[in-house]
Amino acid sequence: MRLRNKPWAKPLMAENPQWVVTEPEQFRGKWQTRFAKEAPIYIEVGMGKGRFIVEMAEKYPERNFIGLEIQTAATGMALKKQIEKQLPNLQFICANGSGLETFFAKNEVAGVYLNFSDPWPKKRQAKRRLTYKSFLKQYEYVMEPKGYLEFKTDNMGLFEYSLTSLNNYGMKFEQVWLDLHSDEEAVVDNVMTEYEQKFSEKGQPIYKLKAQF
Amino acid sequence: MRLRNKPWAKPLMAENPQWVVTEPEQFRGKWQTRFAKEAPIYIEVGMGKGRFIVEMAEKYPERNFIGLEIQTAATGMALKKQIEKQLPNLQFICANGSGLETFFAKNEVAGVYLNFSDPWPKKRQAKRRLTYKSFLKQYEYVMEPKGYLEFKTDNMGLFEYSLTSLNNYGMKFEQVWLDLHSDEEAVVDNVMTEYEQKFSEKGQPIYKLKAQF
Repeated sequence: MRLRNKPWAKPLMAENPQWVVTEPEQFRGKWQTRFAKEAPIYIEVGMGKGRFIVEMAEKYPERNFIGLEIQTAATGMALKKQIEKQLPNLQFICANGSGLETFFAKNEVAGVYLNFSDPWPKKRQAKRRLTYKSFLKQYEYVMEPKGYLEFKTDNMGLFEYSLTSLNNYGMKFEQVWLDLHSDEEAVVDNVMTEYEQKFSEKGQPIYKLKAQF
Repeated sequence: MRLRNKPWAKPLMAENPQWVVTEPEQFRGKWQTRFAKEAPIYIEVGMGKGRFIVEMAEKYPERNFIGLEIQTAATGMALKKQIEKQLPNLQFICANGSGLETFFAKNEVAGVYLNFSDPWPKKRQAKRRLTYKSFLKQYEYVMEPKGYLEFKTDNMGLFEYSLTSLNNYGMKFEQVWLDLHSDEEAVVDNVMTEYEQKFSEKGQPIYKLKAQF
C-alpha cells in the first residue's frame, strides 16, 4: 500500500544512520558489523510500517533482523518504533528490494520473510510480484541453503500464483496454511503484521507458505 | 463417504459385465479392447456414484474413461446411470484402487482425476490419503509422462496436505485454484461431482490442483 508522503521521514532517517541504511551495497558481506552481536540474519522484504519485524526482533533477541522497505514514509514509521525500542538486533534498509544480490553476499541471510506483498493482480504485472522467479532467484542467492522463505498474504490470487511459482522454481514446501489463524499451534508462534490483524479480524483467511530452495 | 449397502448392486454388476470389471488385472495393458474406439484413457480414482465420470464421458466422446470405485453400492449407482446412457467410451472398475500398477500397464493412462477423496484427517491416517506418496508413485507409473493429475476437494486440510505432498514428490503444478467457482474461465469447463454441487451451493470454496509428474 502506498502511504501518504511524510515530510518528516527523510530527515528522521538522516538523523538515525545507526538504524537505517540507504546505501546497502556498502555493507554487502559485512552486515554483522551493524549489530551488537553476531547472529543469523533474517530479512523481511517489504516491511511496510515495520510491526512484524520489530516484534520478531523483540521475540527472538538471539537473532538479527533487517527490514527492507522502498517507501520512505513507511520506513519512517518503522524507524519511530525502533527509536523508542532501541533494539540492538534490528536494522532497516530503505531501498528498492529488487537489487537484493547487490545488498547481500551469497548465503549472508538465514531466512526471508514476505508479508502481504503487493498482489499486482493483472497478468502483465506478474513480474513485479515478490514471488516471481526473478525475485526467487535473488532470495536463493542471498539465503543459506537450509534457510526458509516464509510468505503470508490475504490475497487469494497472489497465493494461488505463488504456490505455482515457487513449485515451478523447484522450491520444496515445508508447510502450507489456507487459514493460518484456524491452526492453534501455528497461531502461538505467529507474529502478525498490521494488515494481518485488520484482515483476520474481518474473518478473512490468511494464507501462509513455508518453503526451502 | 460410505453408502448404505444396496443388495441389488452386486447382482446388477454381474448382469452387466460389458460395463463393469471386477478383476481388472485381466485387462492390464489391454484396456483399449474394452472400448468401442481406441482413444486416450482417463481414469477417476474413487468415482463415488459416478456423476463426474459419466458427464466427462458424455462431454468428451473422443476420449475413453474408466471410473474406479471400491464400494459396490457406489459402483451400482454409477452403473445405473451407464445402463441408461450406454456410453461406448465409459467403463467401471469395482476394486481397491491401491493396486493401480497391477490394473494398468506403464503409461497406459492419459490422465488421472481425484475428486473429493476421503480426507482421512488424523495424522496417523495420512498413508490412506489418495495424495500420499505411495499413491502418487502409482499414478506416475500408469500415466503417460505428459499426463495431468487433476485433484478437487472441499476439504481444506486435505488440500493443504496435498499441495505439500505433490510438491515434495517433485510434481510440477500447472495451476492452483483456492476457489474454483470464482474463476469464470475455469467454471465453463468444470464438470461437477455430486459433492461439489452440494458444497459449492453452501458457499464453501472448492480447491483444485492440476499437476504433472
